[in-house]
Amino acid sequence: MNFQSLKEEAFEANLALVRHGLVVFTWGNASARDFSQGVMAIKPSGVAYDKLRPADMVIVELESGQAVEPGGLNPSSDTPTHRCLYLAFEKVGGMVHTHSRQATAWAQAGRDLPCFGTTHADYFLGTIPCTAEMTAEEIMGGQGYEYNTGTVIVREFQQRQLAPLDMPAVLVRSHAPFVWGKNAAAAAHNAVVLEELAGMALNTLALSPQIPAISPALLTKHFKRKHGAGAYYGQKHTPATSTSA
Amino acid sequence: MNFQSLKEEAFEANLALVRHGLVVFTWGNASARDFSQGVMAIKPSGVAYDKLRPADMVIVELESGQAVEPGGLNPSSDTPTHRCLYLAFEKVGGMVHTHSRQATAWAQAGRDLPCFGTTHADYFLGTIPCTAEMTAEEIMGGQGYEYNTGTVIVREFQQRQLAPLDMPAVLVRSHAPFVWGKNAAAAAHNAVVLEELAGMALNTLALSPQIPAISPALLTKHFKRKHGAGAYYGQKHTPATSTSA
Amino acid sequence: MNFQSLKEEAFEANLALVRHGLVVFTWGNASARDFSQGVMAIKPSGVAYDKLRPADMVIVELESGQAVEPGGLNPSSDTPTHRCLYLAFEKVGGMVHTHSRQATAWAQAGRDLPCFGTTHADYFLGTIPCTAEMTAEEIMGGQGYEYNTGTVIVREFQQRQLAPLDMPAVLVRSHAPFVWGKNAAAAAHNAVVLEELAGMALNTLALSPQIPAISPALLTKHFKRKHGAGAYYGQKHTPATSTSA
Amino acid sequence: MNFQSLKEEAFEANLALVRHGLVVFTWGNASARDFSQGVMAIKPSGVAYDKLRPADMVIVELESGQAVEPGGLNPSSDTPTHRCLYLAFEKVGGMVHTHSRQATAWAQAGRDLPCFGTTHADYFLGTIPCTAEMTAEEIMGGQGYEYNTGTVIVREFQQRQLAPLDMPAVLVRSHAPFVWGKNAAAAAHNAVVLEELAGMALNTLALSPQIPAISPALLTKHFKRKHGAGAYYGQKHTPATSTSA
Repeated sequence: MNFQSLKEEAFEANLALVRHGLVVFTWGNASARDFSQGVMAIKPSGVAYDKLRPADMVIVELESGQAVEPGGLNPSSDTPTHRCLYLAFEKVGGMVHTHSRQATAWAQAGRDLPCFGTTHADYFLGTIPCTAEMTAEEIMGGQGYEYNTGTVIVREFQQRQLAPLDMPAVLVRSHAPFVWGKNAAAAAHNAVVLEELAGMALNTLALSPQIPAISPALLTKHFKRKHGAGAYYGQKHTPATSTSA
Repeated sequence: MNFQSLKEEAFEANLALVRHGLVVFTWGNASARDFSQGVMAIKPSGVAYDKLRPADMVIVELESGQAVEPGGLNPSSDTPTHRCLYLAFEKVGGMVHTHSRQATAWAQAGRDLPCFGTTHADYFLGTIPCTAEMTAEEIMGGQGYEYNTGTVIVREFQQRQLAPLDMPAVLVRSHAPFVWGKNAAAAAHNAVVLEELAGMALNTLALSPQIPAISPALLTKHFKRKHGAGAYYGQKHTPATSTSA
Repeated sequence: MNFQSLKEEAFEANLALVRHGLVVFTWGNASARDFSQGVMAIKPSGVAYDKLRPADMVIVELESGQAVEPGGLNPSSDTPTHRCLYLAFEKVGGMVHTHSRQATAWAQAGRDLPCFGTTHADYFLGTIPCTAEMTAEEIMGGQGYEYNTGTVIVREFQQRQLAPLDMPAVLVRSHAPFVWGKNAAAAAHNAVVLEELAGMALNTLALSPQIPAISPALLTKHFKRKHGAGAYYGQKHTPATSTSA
Repeated sequence: MNFQSLKEEAFEANLALVRHGLVVFTWGNASARDFSQGVMAIKPSGVAYDKLRPADMVIVELESGQAVEPGGLNPSSDTPTHRCLYLAFEKVGGMVHTHSRQATAWAQAGRDLPCFGTTHADYFLGTIPCTAEMTAEEIMGGQGYEYNTGTVIVREFQQRQLAPLDMPAVLVRSHAPFVWGKNAAAAAHNAVVLEELAGMALNTLALSPQIPAISPALLTKHFKRKHGAGAYYGQKHTPATSTSA
């Protein structure tokens, strides 16, 4: 099996995070999923972005968590979180994790990110959830802290009955965001959007602390304008990652 | 008819938005009006700025909304808003729409932007209005959401008796700003100014939540210093877009 | 008389404002004074910085306000303010005006900028004053709005008994800062410092709304460490503009 | 004795502060310690970073504070603070001081920086302390203001029973941060992290003013994931400065 194109996709998404200023040092990682082979390519752990090469991406089997290629680098320490989310969110083809400034502030504040405007509605069908706090058991035990981080996210989505591709991001309480999409490029794109939304929402609340979320009519109008059967945005060949205007 | 110079004007204004950091991805668009021919050149929908060429600009008839040239790209999804505003604001020669961070926070907060200083007074003759919330009918029906967005703006200007060239911007509630001027370059220039004003006003309120708008005397003095018969700012050949100092 | 070196000094200070991100478009100006000849070189009005050349600087006689060289460009519209301040502050050799984001927010908020830390104390011997509001008479009459702006600043300094070189900046209420120094380079340098202080003070108050100014002992220690007879900062040849560390 | 490699290490750390945007003008300095020879290499006072060369670093004996090489530049005016901290914190190999915007705002506000998330926990084992205010005696007397600044820091660490390498930063009240690490590169790295944390914590409190620090379980989990015997982050050869993801 040849994983070169999968590694290229993961590599490009990792670089996109840097290019858009979402990562400091090595505080971020992106992965790309191969649906047919049941594997992902993910950033190696603790490698500086300016040293990163496509060949450094680590191929991991989603079910077992085993590295597929012998002698490779260690995968990101967040690999089990990516695995857990891919296994639960079966249509998700790309995943990123960052500690981007504004989104991380919301995660640290333990607050859901409401939809205050159409920029948000163009990408996320409603409130972006912040997870419950992880218990000492979840931090220490079970399948390990990183895998349990994924479990907490999945439980949040089940409880709120959210569809992963209608709500391609989550704020992990006291930690930072995980963001996904139909492929790795879309996941990185959505991570940039989330950071913009988090910053704008912070200032929105500074100006109007009691402002409610936008109306369901406006939310649905904008989301559907770009997603699903009735979408009329962009050119016929517009990629999934392109956006309002 | 040859639309090359009109397309160049619209193209340059679109690039100016990017150069000044007002757009993320494709979240913005600029158009230029040809008064004599009753058309505008506008950015195509969902095309990345780094791929954009002057020839990609789409020529649209203002009255009918029809594309003038066969086989062109789809115009920006916000084209009907531009049309509606050009038809109502007959001296306006350029129009831009962005989701710039600070101005969008004010729009999301549903707040008018008061004139807190002379930077504001140099460009906008008073409070920059935020529109009323759009009703479900306006979102769903009539001539369509985008055209109705323009209608809501025009109604706001009529109710407040504002002259479009004395007040070349509006905050569309729960959405983002539309900004205009006597030509596309002036519209892009004013969009940069609005973003600066929005950020400075946010911090002004953080320091003095009850601060009132500046006095009518100071407002008029600064605006007239640069606009109208008594203007004495700049060199004899200074373009309309140049500014205080 | 040859004003080339004076024009170079003013030109360099104007560019320094741009290089440090203090000006948007043409919202700023710097001047340099020639003590022996009683003139200043100042930026022309409304000329874009990227087009500016040293030869474009305008030589103005401080007493009369007359341009010295025939056929030159119009001087900055703020020229009378510079003149008024040079005439009142006789040891000041350089002057700048900007609408830098953070300092302008304080001016718009009508608040003095207290000394909250040693960064401030290294440059400004206490609270940076915000002027009184200008009256309609001061805006409309007397020697004109711009000259009266200077008069309001001078009056504020007289009332507070401030020494211009111990307090080389002021916040003009509802407008923006004027900043000066022993020469134009020092004035531009101090304008950068003021912008940093204004941003840090805003966040300081967000964290501790009731925080008092630092102690007189700490204020004096830091200011004297770098200014006056007992200064022991830097190398023997350190220029007046160099700073803590 | 040849100090070239020590000077290189200090020089690189000084440049890292600039590259990461932590210093304005010359507001910062970094030093590197030679454990065997009992000396440090530190930035000269008031020299612009763009003029700085490795050979300009000043070698100072930690015990005596004497310059080792004849005819060198004056060391940073903060040299006695570095000395005091090296003498008290015997495993610390690198030290930096900056006036970085966000961290300085916390120091000016006189507030400890609580651990609000895992980004913080990856580097600092709990609350980053803000010192007590310095007394007039400490400012004026004893071994001098700069040495006493170090004394105040050391006392704070003794009172709170903090281990310098578990808590490699302090906020000096009304001043700014000092940050350290096992070597100069780690110290500069930690200074960048502190600035990120300070900004994220400010926004966290804006969103949730009453948010508590994270749980001891989560704090310990993240810190130990990267430090000490049980660390499993990164590649086998990962340097001490690399970080989460």
